[in-house]
Amino acid sequence: MLNFDFYNPTQILFGKGRIADLNKVVPADAKVLLMYGGGSIKHNGVFDEVIAALGSRSVTEFTGIEPNPSYETLMKAVEVVKQNKIDFLLAVGGGSVIDGAKFVAAAALFEGDDPWAILEKRGTNITKALPFGSVLTLPATGSEMNNGSVVTRKSLKAKMAFSSRHCFPLFSVLDPTKTYTLPLRQVGNGAVDAFVHVMEQYMTYPVNAPVQDRFAEGLLKTLIEEGPKALANPEDYDVRANLMWCATMALNGMISTGVPQDWATHMIGHELTALHGLDHAQTLAIVLPSMLRIRKEAKRAKLLQYAERVWDLREGRDGDEDSRIDAAIGKTQDFFEQMGVKTHLSDYAIKASDIPPLVSALENHRMVALGEKRDVTLDISRQVLELSL
Amino acid sequence: MLNFDFYNPTQILFGKGRIADLNKVVPADAKVLLMYGGGSIKHNGVFDEVIAALGSRSVTEFTGIEPNPSYETLMKAVEVVKQNKIDFLLAVGGGSVIDGAKFVAAAALFEGDDPWAILEKRGTNITKALPFGSVLTLPATGSEMNNGSVVTRKSLKAKMAFSSRHCFPLFSVLDPTKTYTLPLRQVGNGAVDAFVHVMEQYMTYPVNAPVQDRFAEGLLKTLIEEGPKALANPEDYDVRANLMWCATMALNGMISTGVPQDWATHMIGHELTALHGLDHAQTLAIVLPSMLRIRKEAKRAKLLQYAERVWDLREGRDGDEDSRIDAAIGKTQDFFEQMGVKTHLSDYAIKASDIPPLVSALENHRMVALGEKRDVTLDISRQVLELSL
Repeated sequence: MLNFDFYNPTQILFGKGRIADLNKVVPADAKVLLMYGGGSIKHNGVFDEVIAALGSRSVTEFTGIEPNPSYETLMKAVEVVKQNKIDFLLAVGGGSVIDGAKFVAAAALFEGDDPWAILEKRGTNITKALPFGSVLTLPATGSEMNNGSVVTRKSLKAKMAFSSRHCFPLFSVLDPTKTYTLPLRQVGNGAVDAFVHVMEQYMTYPVNAPVQDRFAEGLLKTLIEEGPKALANPEDYDVRANLMWCATMALNGMISTGVPQDWATHMIGHELTALHGLDHAQTLAIVLPSMLRIRKEAKRAKLLQYAERVWDLREGRDGDEDSRIDAAIGKTQDFFEQMGVKTHLSDYAIKASDIPPLVSALENHRMVALGEKRDVTLDISRQVLELSL
Repeated sequence: MLNFDFYNPTQILFGKGRIADLNKVVPADAKVLLMYGGGSIKHNGVFDEVIAALGSRSVTEFTGIEPNPSYETLMKAVEVVKQNKIDFLLAVGGGSVIDGAKFVAAAALFEGDDPWAILEKRGTNITKALPFGSVLTLPATGSEMNNGSVVTRKSLKAKMAFSSRHCFPLFSVLDPTKTYTLPLRQVGNGAVDAFVHVMEQYMTYPVNAPVQDRFAEGLLKTLIEEGPKALANPEDYDVRANLMWCATMALNGMISTGVPQDWATHMIGHELTALHGLDHAQTLAIVLPSMLRIRKEAKRAKLLQYAERVWDLREGRDGDEDSRIDAAIGKTQDFFEQMGVKTHLSDYAIKASDIPPLVSALENHRMVALGEKRDVTLDISRQVLELSL
């Protein structure tokens, strides 16, 4: 096992009816900025429950935070915070809204000239942030229980990440019933997103960390079991609860303790979103299977473990090593398709001629040595994209 | 899944050489009370590393915290805190020292007349506590990453628990190399303690919480694999690291999210320690197998799951349901014996005539309706003890 630090002070309020408890966890005298996205929370009852729970607190609304939240939009929220002397942010929505709140929380108190520096320095220059909490409506990114955020600057076509010890949500409310009305596309995307988060922290090389491996495998197996049920029976409480907790546990720092991490799939995926506007999960579903095929030798030991423990492909019964690895990768890809997320570039009308600009974008963002051993070169990324056509 | 709250702000610093990082996490101007037990830390290098890391900070020592820390001893530490205007506690040792620090942290700032009220009210009357951290030398209780504590008042022969949101360690340093020199008895006890902690949160009835179940099973399987290796090869780093992380994860609140909990075995065990002075883990190793046998019907579904997933006892291959359940309980008991922890009352010279006083003690402490369904009556506790002879 590798040395590690673990720290995660976010309070989770999980279950049916928990939005009412905002009254206990938002400071009684808070001046709240209520941040949300496109307005779906006005149709599914979440908005009304939040407003009721906040009671007599001063509430200012900031709406229109887009998927892949933009620096341009978020800087408008920073202005609203300053003009209204807001002292608490409440993000109501999915990972994009929560990621946005993290940036606004840090940018509102940033002491440098230009908050864009937060992204350029990946958050290392954050010394304080406004307190904030979240009400999660879309299980997927794990942002509700971590300190990371991804922000896109439209004018530069740049999608960049930052994190900071000051950017953990104070609390997050997770009510599975609030996910019943999600579009199926978002349900599928969410399960794929959580699945690939686990894989980025698990599918590397063995370091004798059996607890972390078994936790990761437990999340993967649960996502495989519960994901399709959520598409078939949208109002099954336990299924929604299990998916929601999987997505949170997939990226709250617990399963990455003491193990190497990859994240090459995410870095290539970010360029696909920036240049072609694909959903984040779509990019992961495209890149991961090819990444595993191209990097089969580097990941052989963990791929065999994954084949056996997650997909029950066993030595002596299910073919030789390469057959079992290939079958496990195939089943992974099938699972993404089963969740309604297409896994080829051609499914999104992206052609071979689109690959060189994607590789150039990786180069421009200095993504030239990716993966757990920093040996995923631009040439390997190009091969991965070509195999994904 | 049941509704739940999760909150755990303790920072973990894990790995070889991490004691030096005390310099980063203990406030630079702290007046530190260094709390420890019998002095083993003076022989294994831990004390010297801690003192070196604390540098020029003011350090007062408080030694002699016993296993099953006593109210009487801890109140002396409270006096030292007040006399020396201590503002930070550093517990260096196992669960007893850390539990002791939690009590001292709360008692030093307690506003009532008599800090014994903290135990009488189970911590609900704690409104603040001194900040404290720990350096863990004995993986077992999980106290390094939770807010619970058990304190014994010798004069009353009472062993009582409390917890409070104010009693999480600010940080805990976990260096597996510092466990190399532990007596084998403590290694065995530690693995059994962690194992039973998991069982208390897992072995109840199904509530469709597959993530929590798989996490619990992952911890149990890892303890079964790694425990005996630690006895055979005391200086295997990975084995020690895996045991240490298992023990912490076993009781930091993660695996109990959204599931029922039992704890009847612990309550009966506490009386065995209070009246007969047994090690905590010895009491658990005695009580758990009998508890599972007596409560087989109430726990049938989870016992079958446990038999299959933890002990690989399968339908169609390993006998009928009752055979598999009995075999799983037998293997559990064998594991405790393998770890050097005896599992019968008679191994500790406790006789049938000692049982009525134990049952009376349970009654005096109002432990008359234990377990996940509060249906473990005094009569059932008596049967469990009789089966343990």
